[in-house]
Amino acid sequence: MKQNIAILCSGGDVSGMNPALKRFVEYSLQNNLTPYFVYDGYEGLIDNNIQKASYCDVSGIINRGGTKIGSARSKRFMQVEYRNIAKQNLDALHVTMLIVLGGDGSFRGLHQFYKEHNIKFCGVPSTIDNDISGTDYCLGVDTALNMIKFSIDSIRDTASSFKRAFVIETMGNKCGYLALVSHLTSGSELCLIPETAYNLNEYEQKFKQEIQNGRRYFIAVVAEGIKEDSKEIARWFEEKIGIESRVNVLGHLQRGGNPTVKDRLMAYKFITYAIDALLDNKNETIVCYTKEGFRYKEINAVVNTPYQLDEELIKFINSPKATE
Amino acid sequence: MKQNIAILCSGGDVSGMNPALKRFVEYSLQNNLTPYFVYDGYEGLIDNNIQKASYCDVSGIINRGGTKIGSARSKRFMQVEYRNIAKQNLDALHVTMLIVLGGDGSFRGLHQFYKEHNIKFCGVPSTIDNDISGTDYCLGVDTALNMIKFSIDSIRDTASSFKRAFVIETMGNKCGYLALVSHLTSGSELCLIPETAYNLNEYEQKFKQEIQNGRRYFIAVVAEGIKEDSKEIARWFEEKIGIESRVNVLGHLQRGGNPTVKDRLMAYKFITYAIDALLDNKNETIVCYTKEGFRYKEINAVVNTPYQLDEELIKFINSPKATE
Amino acid sequence: MKQNIAILCSGGDVSGMNPALKRFVEYSLQNNLTPYFVYDGYEGLIDNNIQKASYCDVSGIINRGGTKIGSARSKRFMQVEYRNIAKQNLDALHVTMLIVLGGDGSFRGLHQFYKEHNIKFCGVPSTIDNDISGTDYCLGVDTALNMIKFSIDSIRDTASSFKRAFVIETMGNKCGYLALVSHLTSGSELCLIPETAYNLNEYEQKFKQEIQNGRRYFIAVVAEGIKEDSKEIARWFEEKIGIESRVNVLGHLQRGGNPTVKDRLMAYKFITYAIDALLDNKNETIVCYTKEGFRYKEINAVVNTPYQLDEELIKFINSPKATE
Amino acid sequence: MKQNIAILCSGGDVSGMNPALKRFVEYSLQNNLTPYFVYDGYEGLIDNNIQKASYCDVSGIINRGGTKIGSARSKRFMQVEYRNIAKQNLDALHVTMLIVLGGDGSFRGLHQFYKEHNIKFCGVPSTIDNDISGTDYCLGVDTALNMIKFSIDSIRDTASSFKRAFVIETMGNKCGYLALVSHLTSGSELCLIPETAYNLNEYEQKFKQEIQNGRRYFIAVVAEGIKEDSKEIARWFEEKIGIESRVNVLGHLQRGGNPTVKDRLMAYKFITYAIDALLDNKNETIVCYTKEGFRYKEINAVVNTPYQLDEELIKFINSPKATE
Repeated sequence: MKQNIAILCSGGDVSGMNPALKRFVEYSLQNNLTPYFVYDGYEGLIDNNIQKASYCDVSGIINRGGTKIGSARSKRFMQVEYRNIAKQNLDALHVTMLIVLGGDGSFRGLHQFYKEHNIKFCGVPSTIDNDISGTDYCLGVDTALNMIKFSIDSIRDTASSFKRAFVIETMGNKCGYLALVSHLTSGSELCLIPETAYNLNEYEQKFKQEIQNGRRYFIAVVAEGIKEDSKEIARWFEEKIGIESRVNVLGHLQRGGNPTVKDRLMAYKFITYAIDALLDNKNETIVCYTKEGFRYKEINAVVNTPYQLDEELIKFINSPKATE
Repeated sequence: MKQNIAILCSGGDVSGMNPALKRFVEYSLQNNLTPYFVYDGYEGLIDNNIQKASYCDVSGIINRGGTKIGSARSKRFMQVEYRNIAKQNLDALHVTMLIVLGGDGSFRGLHQFYKEHNIKFCGVPSTIDNDISGTDYCLGVDTALNMIKFSIDSIRDTASSFKRAFVIETMGNKCGYLALVSHLTSGSELCLIPETAYNLNEYEQKFKQEIQNGRRYFIAVVAEGIKEDSKEIARWFEEKIGIESRVNVLGHLQRGGNPTVKDRLMAYKFITYAIDALLDNKNETIVCYTKEGFRYKEINAVVNTPYQLDEELIKFINSPKATE
Repeated sequence: MKQNIAILCSGGDVSGMNPALKRFVEYSLQNNLTPYFVYDGYEGLIDNNIQKASYCDVSGIINRGGTKIGSARSKRFMQVEYRNIAKQNLDALHVTMLIVLGGDGSFRGLHQFYKEHNIKFCGVPSTIDNDISGTDYCLGVDTALNMIKFSIDSIRDTASSFKRAFVIETMGNKCGYLALVSHLTSGSELCLIPETAYNLNEYEQKFKQEIQNGRRYFIAVVAEGIKEDSKEIARWFEEKIGIESRVNVLGHLQRGGNPTVKDRLMAYKFITYAIDALLDNKNETIVCYTKEGFRYKEINAVVNTPYQLDEELIKFINSPKATE
Repeated sequence: MKQNIAILCSGGDVSGMNPALKRFVEYSLQNNLTPYFVYDGYEGLIDNNIQKASYCDVSGIINRGGTKIGSARSKRFMQVEYRNIAKQNLDALHVTMLIVLGGDGSFRGLHQFYKEHNIKFCGVPSTIDNDISGTDYCLGVDTALNMIKFSIDSIRDTASSFKRAFVIETMGNKCGYLALVSHLTSGSELCLIPETAYNLNEYEQKFKQEIQNGRRYFIAVVAEGIKEDSKEIARWFEEKIGIESRVNVLGHLQRGGNPTVKDRLMAYKFITYAIDALLDNKNETIVCYTKEGFRYKEINAVVNTPYQLDEELIKFINSPKATE
């Protein structure tokens, strides 16, 4: 008998979800599964906003950011009575397998759902923050990084023309991954992230010296989750370094954009591995991308371990004395 | 005898200045003039930061935002003693013609300089705000508009995925041109600019109705110079329309970026007309782009007339009742 | 009584058609007209592939190249019996007004259709070649130019790294507009177009001299319609100038891409003027963009006048002796 | 005593070389080494085109494709007498360490140079073909893939508007990596690469069926090294599938473009590992990126092993019967 499989997006949307939906429909059909879309995350599961999907639904979406089926955060799904309704909705459609694209918050809800109702699921780590334990890569990160790159490249044009310091704030409340990689790949002069302590005083001498040597501008990349507000960093440039400064909070620009090749390819592979797992009777796993390749990990191992930023990357941050 | 000609950028930099510099060097040499670059605006004139320019200096810059020779605002140039120094510096290099890329503030300084020292000059309107009287187009506007377009396209991805209102703030302190054109070309739902009064209450009924009809998101494009802060507009969406909302201040992203074809072509033509004017002994003009083509205008007519936003464009703004 | 209005795209698609469709639906509804889409050009008119259109149909298309309703060339529409069928199909749906986005070939068919059946129509010039007489601008040109710019910028990277000449072939069978503007705005060294005679020998001396002065690469922009094949131009660089060379035929890359702000705004205005004309009982016009703004022209004046490339632009082409 | 270190680019240039040069200068200075640039590959080594490099030389290049110091293929370096000259030039400048960015052809020359003159070197795999044995990633590949993506996205706009088949030819004479990944990430319908046999007849039935089911266009991605010419594939679409078709040879567009974040980060890491190796007295290695991270490999192991395309990727190619 033909089996039914559903997919949903939960939490913040990322660029790469649409290519994942496309692969989901195609690979399901190749494997004789009937694919369903759940709209607006767990909310759609509860409200029975679930539709059979076909090739037509995924035509022309591979190059679009966001997610065609919507994403949402769901408080109701935290409550057992709504999870029971969700289960009834899936049962009514004979859906026995579920793929969830989301972050660790979304996976925790899923874990509870599994324990109560034993629905087979597979999670695909999806968040631009790249802060999920157990996987080296989360869907959407590469596109977000390239959007930030585009922004910094543009801002540098005007910074260098006008003798200014720019404080560019990236997303990342608890994780400095985006800020750190953007720093290394934009040639910025300063990087501040939540994971590492910093003392601006240590940069003062160096930056003043560089101005005397002819430097015309500074770019600082800071994660939103650092202890100080970006405006304070800008004020520091004005008061201590003596250069006019501006703040640019990139905001949701980072979430959008045509998915990069890497995010399209990762979407393709994540979904392929997720469906393979479900067909192979792995009931409760997260597909992780590790140095050894794709690996299936138990949901507990993923959601109950704090994320650690890559030590090698942290080591690369310019120390205040680096160029002396 | 070979004559010397200089160019400088003043005020906020715009994308298109580099292609203008390239054309300046090439067309000067074709006309047997020796081209000079003045660095950092009028400041460079005062500090004698003036260099002879060659083909090599403009190789590989046509696709770069900002300006290779720097731009600046100069308080010193407001004072007669510094203008005298500036004149001495130009005299020492036998520079008799000057091209200035800038806005009306920059042209006012130039006007004073001319009255005192009789140096032949030609101004090229350059500001992303497009708010200079007498010209329909200022260098840099098209690139700025396309940077805004890129940003809104990206933000729409996430807005439509997540049921949100986004308030996107463009530059334009006194002029709503960028916001208005961006509104018309991004399909946004709301546009607020300094030139027209608005009453948010009038939109309330319409927007609530649209949500009931299935609308998932709103994009509002607002100029920085409107009476309310963008955050207040976002709060209005949350409180009155009942939709989660975010603010995105695009900031200096709008100034940068690879110049568009239009800005490169306008740079080419502006500079060609400017040099032609100087060779033709027009001593004190601004090159304006009008419906009749390029026209030379007297500096007085440009700097002493308030800018008027195109009436046809204003007419296009969605009225609250437009779709009822 | 509510009137019905239809739109179709004919001939080669251009980027800007989708924003035009969006404005068509919205402005029709604002004017109490019922909008219809005709799919695949005149073919859809004959095959009765005509559908009522709503806001939903144009949601999320403003940033997409091509045309959602398809375009086609139709041989059948040349024949009277098929035009009769087309008329019957329109009559059955009570469609009394027709907007056609296309080039002069498409307008000629329309003219015949009008003479036989008296259907009110308005044409919107749409072709990346920019070769329609009577209008200074055709929808799609600005996006095509920016796609070419992007390509040349990228190719220059490798040309300058590797000491090579690149012959870049743009579209333009009879019209050199794309090649010429791309030449002026990319800083290329050579431009060959069908409208002007050229003699490569005249460049030989100059180019050899430039190599001796340190030039590392050449970019030649040539229109597809010049008398020689692009490969012959490349061979000339190898044999006469002594530099390795490559040909790059940009092809249909030029037709696609996210519409620029200019093409979105022109689409908005073209459609607004077209619907205004039909509502104003102008029965048989083409909306043209001229130095005086938008003007309605008789179809005869447009299709029976040969296109002339802007004289001012031709004047700008680098003559072989320009920099001597 | 301060040691001198040089870098050169050899063979086809790739996007990512400029960020590598920037990191080279910065990390050399941080490690108390004096950095030198060799211009135009081994040719510059022979012609003594070698210059000391400073921070200024790498300012503003991180976002530029190609290589600032030029690249070249050198026949002379195949001959012992020219290698001797090269060594004398390096000796005269007391350069004792050499980093080479290039492909396996470039590494073979280097190997010979080492055997004769014992100069310490480190190779960094750099080629958009991604066909160097021993490393999973070569610098430049990600940018090339994203340029191809951009092109296919644009061409799809027009393909879907006009009912056409497009045969898109990527680089890759012996290696289908670019074509294969582009196929998977663009949702194209057909992929032909040198590594796998194909029989177009097997697709005929499937494609005809898809047209009957409403498919409007086909995109085929083919590597330049397949047995047939791209034009023959286009003819097959016209004759056997009955759909108008076009060929688009992407050519050197693939080599250029602003480096992606991945290529900037890989450049950063490759150079860091390369300098670390030289400082650590590894005399003759290639820095390879493998599943286990960065590894130093003997040059013999790299240049004498044929490259194998990733089996997992090959497995993903749509078989003709995949969707039945």
